[in-house]
Amino acid sequence: MVVVMQAGVEDALIEAVIGRLSRFGFDVHRSSGVSQTVLGAIGVQPDFDVRQVQVLEGVAEVYRVTEPYKIASRTWRRGDTVIDIAGIEIGRDRVAVMAGPRVYENEAQLESTAALLVDQGVRFLRTGLLRPKKAAHSSEWPADDRLRQMRAVADTHGLHLVVEVSDQTLVSQAAAVADIFLIPSTGMQNEVLLMEAARAGKPVILQRGLAATIEEWLMAAEKILAQSNARVMLCEGGIRTFEQSTRHTLDLSSIPVVQAKSHLPVLADPSHGTGLRNKVTPMARAAVAAGAHGVLIDIYPDPPSALRDGPQALFFEQFVELMAQIRLIAAAVGRTVASPAR
Amino acid sequence: MVVVMQAGVEDALIEAVIGRLSRFGFDVHRSSGVSQTVLGAIGVQPDFDVRQVQVLEGVAEVYRVTEPYKIASRTWRRGDTVIDIAGIEIGRDRVAVMAGPRVYENEAQLESTAALLVDQGVRFLRTGLLRPKKAAHSSEWPADDRLRQMRAVADTHGLHLVVEVSDQTLVSQAAAVADIFLIPSTGMQNEVLLMEAARAGKPVILQRGLAATIEEWLMAAEKILAQSNARVMLCEGGIRTFEQSTRHTLDLSSIPVVQAKSHLPVLADPSHGTGLRNKVTPMARAAVAAGAHGVLIDIYPDPPSALRDGPQALFFEQFVELMAQIRLIAAAVGRTVASPAR
Amino acid sequence: MVVVMQAGVEDALIEAVIGRLSRFGFDVHRSSGVSQTVLGAIGVQPDFDVRQVQVLEGVAEVYRVTEPYKIASRTWRRGDTVIDIAGIEIGRDRVAVMAGPRVYENEAQLESTAALLVDQGVRFLRTGLLRPKKAAHSSEWPADDRLRQMRAVADTHGLHLVVEVSDQTLVSQAAAVADIFLIPSTGMQNEVLLMEAARAGKPVILQRGLAATIEEWLMAAEKILAQSNARVMLCEGGIRTFEQSTRHTLDLSSIPVVQAKSHLPVLADPSHGTGLRNKVTPMARAAVAAGAHGVLIDIYPDPPSALRDGPQALFFEQFVELMAQIRLIAAAVGRTVASPAR
Amino acid sequence: MVVVMQAGVEDALIEAVIGRLSRFGFDVHRSSGVSQTVLGAIGVQPDFDVRQVQVLEGVAEVYRVTEPYKIASRTWRRGDTVIDIAGIEIGRDRVAVMAGPRVYENEAQLESTAALLVDQGVRFLRTGLLRPKKAAHSSEWPADDRLRQMRAVADTHGLHLVVEVSDQTLVSQAAAVADIFLIPSTGMQNEVLLMEAARAGKPVILQRGLAATIEEWLMAAEKILAQSNARVMLCEGGIRTFEQSTRHTLDLSSIPVVQAKSHLPVLADPSHGTGLRNKVTPMARAAVAAGAHGVLIDIYPDPPSALRDGPQALFFEQFVELMAQIRLIAAAVGRTVASPAR
Repeated sequence: MVVVMQAGVEDALIEAVIGRLSRFGFDVHRSSGVSQTVLGAIGVQPDFDVRQVQVLEGVAEVYRVTEPYKIASRTWRRGDTVIDIAGIEIGRDRVAVMAGPRVYENEAQLESTAALLVDQGVRFLRTGLLRPKKAAHSSEWPADDRLRQMRAVADTHGLHLVVEVSDQTLVSQAAAVADIFLIPSTGMQNEVLLMEAARAGKPVILQRGLAATIEEWLMAAEKILAQSNARVMLCEGGIRTFEQSTRHTLDLSSIPVVQAKSHLPVLADPSHGTGLRNKVTPMARAAVAAGAHGVLIDIYPDPPSALRDGPQALFFEQFVELMAQIRLIAAAVGRTVASPAR
Repeated sequence: MVVVMQAGVEDALIEAVIGRLSRFGFDVHRSSGVSQTVLGAIGVQPDFDVRQVQVLEGVAEVYRVTEPYKIASRTWRRGDTVIDIAGIEIGRDRVAVMAGPRVYENEAQLESTAALLVDQGVRFLRTGLLRPKKAAHSSEWPADDRLRQMRAVADTHGLHLVVEVSDQTLVSQAAAVADIFLIPSTGMQNEVLLMEAARAGKPVILQRGLAATIEEWLMAAEKILAQSNARVMLCEGGIRTFEQSTRHTLDLSSIPVVQAKSHLPVLADPSHGTGLRNKVTPMARAAVAAGAHGVLIDIYPDPPSALRDGPQALFFEQFVELMAQIRLIAAAVGRTVASPAR
Repeated sequence: MVVVMQAGVEDALIEAVIGRLSRFGFDVHRSSGVSQTVLGAIGVQPDFDVRQVQVLEGVAEVYRVTEPYKIASRTWRRGDTVIDIAGIEIGRDRVAVMAGPRVYENEAQLESTAALLVDQGVRFLRTGLLRPKKAAHSSEWPADDRLRQMRAVADTHGLHLVVEVSDQTLVSQAAAVADIFLIPSTGMQNEVLLMEAARAGKPVILQRGLAATIEEWLMAAEKILAQSNARVMLCEGGIRTFEQSTRHTLDLSSIPVVQAKSHLPVLADPSHGTGLRNKVTPMARAAVAAGAHGVLIDIYPDPPSALRDGPQALFFEQFVELMAQIRLIAAAVGRTVASPAR
Repeated sequence: MVVVMQAGVEDALIEAVIGRLSRFGFDVHRSSGVSQTVLGAIGVQPDFDVRQVQVLEGVAEVYRVTEPYKIASRTWRRGDTVIDIAGIEIGRDRVAVMAGPRVYENEAQLESTAALLVDQGVRFLRTGLLRPKKAAHSSEWPADDRLRQMRAVADTHGLHLVVEVSDQTLVSQAAAVADIFLIPSTGMQNEVLLMEAARAGKPVILQRGLAATIEEWLMAAEKILAQSNARVMLCEGGIRTFEQSTRHTLDLSSIPVVQAKSHLPVLADPSHGTGLRNKVTPMARAAVAAGAHGVLIDIYPDPPSALRDGPQALFFEQFVELMAQIRLIAAAVGRTVASPAR
């Protein structure tokens, strides 16, 4: 931590700040310039609240020098984290495509989607449950049955199952069937959910919250990593800005930023990020071009009849066209996307 | 819902959109101008996803005309909702001050705070528990004991107890002691928490999420109201903007906006909103001047030694000074703040 | 400037960065901790682009320690700048109210407004010209005549004239009549305008740009101060955020922030900031409660018939009521607002 | 315009609003539902201020149905605008690359850059002048000489010259040498600059302002188009959001959004948008993948010694590598980038 004193403050005030820093457990180095004194405080803990120093009399500015996360940082691990899902590596030179209906409605729907994915060489089936309208645990919401059906479809087609886990009441049920958990943006700040999901031992995709800085997103990842679950993937899903012509603003520059700061793979979700079908294709292509390790795409056999979020889902033929384009783009940046089975 | 067709689209396309709207259950009125056709679709349900129409061919823009919330709106209830807490009315001409240590640390701390509140005529003691660092339900986090202690202190001093409930694992324990629940900004999107908190039957203060529009905030309130819990108060706690010299940007214009759209009382939390002690006093004054029905203020006997968020808490003497100022400001806007006991 | 090296970088890289910093003209102090090296670089010029260091190999983070502005800062001048306008001091214990039609339309309109201001003890008449629709200098836009009429009305009533100067083609004409220049938010980034306005020698109110951080706003003020024009007032006018129920978000916390960082007076413009009449009154009250040295209020004799921005202007009777309220609020925070003449 | 009345308002109020709309010149259609009345007002002028209706008693919401711009919209012109620069078409199937030193420093620098561009098949040399530090027109800032030198270098290499025009004092000088004007983001709101630049008769690249919605950006383009200058290109350059790890947030979803709303070509400037060299390459690739008609790239022979913005400029070898990548990506989306000369 670096503490910049106000110009011209008397020495007693500087000494008081030094004393206070020592009591916080820091080793303090004082460096006095012509008009300003700067204090270096070594030994800061990641979660030290720098405002505790900011409010001291005579202090002008405080900079936390170490990142507020540790295991998630490149400092902790130089090389890239590569997550192996039954032989498919995420985080290396493959662009992992994860697609499917955001909300599972029925077996026929998932069946036809799974068949398309296999056709396109896609290995990850992504889906989820409707959020509870009434009580959690209600009999109107037989999550278990649906989860078992999802698993059966995935097994039939040899696909890995990515299940959205939006709250902790779902964790144990989803753990019984999912290969990968997806925590949606609304869950990023839910600490109980992060802990429970981490402890289930599944690889976790952590979507960025709408108001989350990249730093906060990595701090949320840290909470999962700290539970000894090392298989965390990040997923850019859009941030909230003043621009309203897309639902959110997909911040693709977060991809190279995360790759510099962290060793974790980073994906993008242009369906959630843009919210409108005809923006999904260009932004999915852009995500791959920006270096994403994967993309999540909403598709439905008939998007207009989807119960939820149909307007942001691709039709099958649009998905096939997108796959053709991202295969070429992946090649341009030294990555690969699986080729169609036939 | 109003559907604006693109200029110059052929009639067949317009008819197709009308057909689609009818199948969604709308009653459609067509109005054709010189260059553009506008369709009025009556009978929309509050949660209809207008993007379903936005993506249809030939459609230029879609406007949801009815608000996406119902019970929370002034349309549902013209007069102000007034919440009676043992004879103290929130939502009428009183400015309710709710103050105390954001995190309960020990009885001595709460005791001295409670004594100060009584002195100042304040009737609401606001506090909470540290967020779990490890597992929920862990033995390291004996929530029950602490909650009982809070209640005892409140009872000794005749204060109403406002308890922060940040996740649903806390709901039943907190319900045993709290007079009012406070859902913090990070919980606004947690639907399970909203439902469980609503069903506990306590009055609920719902803090605005950092990325929440006023509309989304009212939609979250609607989820509580829909559980037949009518005692909801809103609390502006700051939004995330590009400005970083305060932790968040306290959006005080939300106060008159909410008062026009909704019948619910609206409070403000300048401690959370600004994050820095010397900004709390001016912004608390400003909130009262803007017409807030109450303010939440963090205070500690010794803020620098607080375990958490000390930098945004007032010292006792600052709180006393603030109280004197807001009594005058409340009077200027036709409201009252309780006078000191002595 | 403080340069934090990446953890574990080899010494040669650190030496290379030190060498580069020396060539930039810095005096470098090296401080090596267990895992990380931090370099203090003393002698930075306010406008040094820290990204030049940020992109060097081995560098993790760079913090500019000195503010990017100088004359505008409290370091340059400890005490408050007080601007004396013919005996009326702005920046001390008075809340200066500046009101009038945003756009001058005709003499009758300005006459009746001026009479109301005198009645209310207000000393500043604020107005401006319509922005040119066609060419600057066009004969359709006889700025000179209108400016002379404004001056005549101000003189008749003994008022000080505040004129909005939105582009540099207006500077010399406006200088002939105005007592104070008001640079609107759209002009904050127009460097030619800032320089020309500064050199006209009038006191300047500098409104914050919609996307301007407080730091950038102070840097813009610095450009005026650097032209040896010390009479600069800042004016919060709203920032752009995701919230769209008000036109902009009036960031009232900027008032205490600016007062801590700078010695310049700071005003607020709730008409521009909220854009809607019924939000102006609560936010004007809030600005005074937050400690603003003044407020700018749009008023028209008949707002609905105003050529421009009528919806954000108060009716006369609303203004009178607002004045009564802010007199009380000013008193609550140790300030005064002039009393009505009768 | 669609006017939604509050639920349950009395008929007299509705009639008053209808009367008011008629006086504004609208043709009004009334449509009454069970609980709410909706008024369609036909004949609105693009720049009508809808707030004039929003503030009327009994009005709940107002939606402007027509876009606030006209010539810039797809309604005005269905097909894409293609701008022909001496045989090179922008807006069709070519990705136009425009590169060079953001600030012209000396002939040697521009010579070597131009040679590289020719080598890479790039046809547009992009550069500009330092912003005036002191007075405009000052002898310390011999713009004319520098502009002539730029032109000479461009001519020698057969390149088209793109010159940044940041304020109107530069327009006539720049017009003497430039093939294309570039109005930077800080100039988007400067109406005098827009008009003067438009009248110079050069094709104009209009960069999006940091706080500009896409609608406002198109309204600024409209001001140029309205001066009978039809050769306008838009350029996404980043918006200001809460995320601070890049200088701005490059909003690539604006590319498909603009392409749906307008017939004008749209480019992207990842150098300005990200502000850091190692983010420029991924975001330039992403812009092409998203469908941009061109990209602007800062390059310098030796970025670390550049007077300004060196940290966001590519080294020559990085530019060559980027060109190779975007040639492949362009092909993937059905576009072309010129091939290297050898």
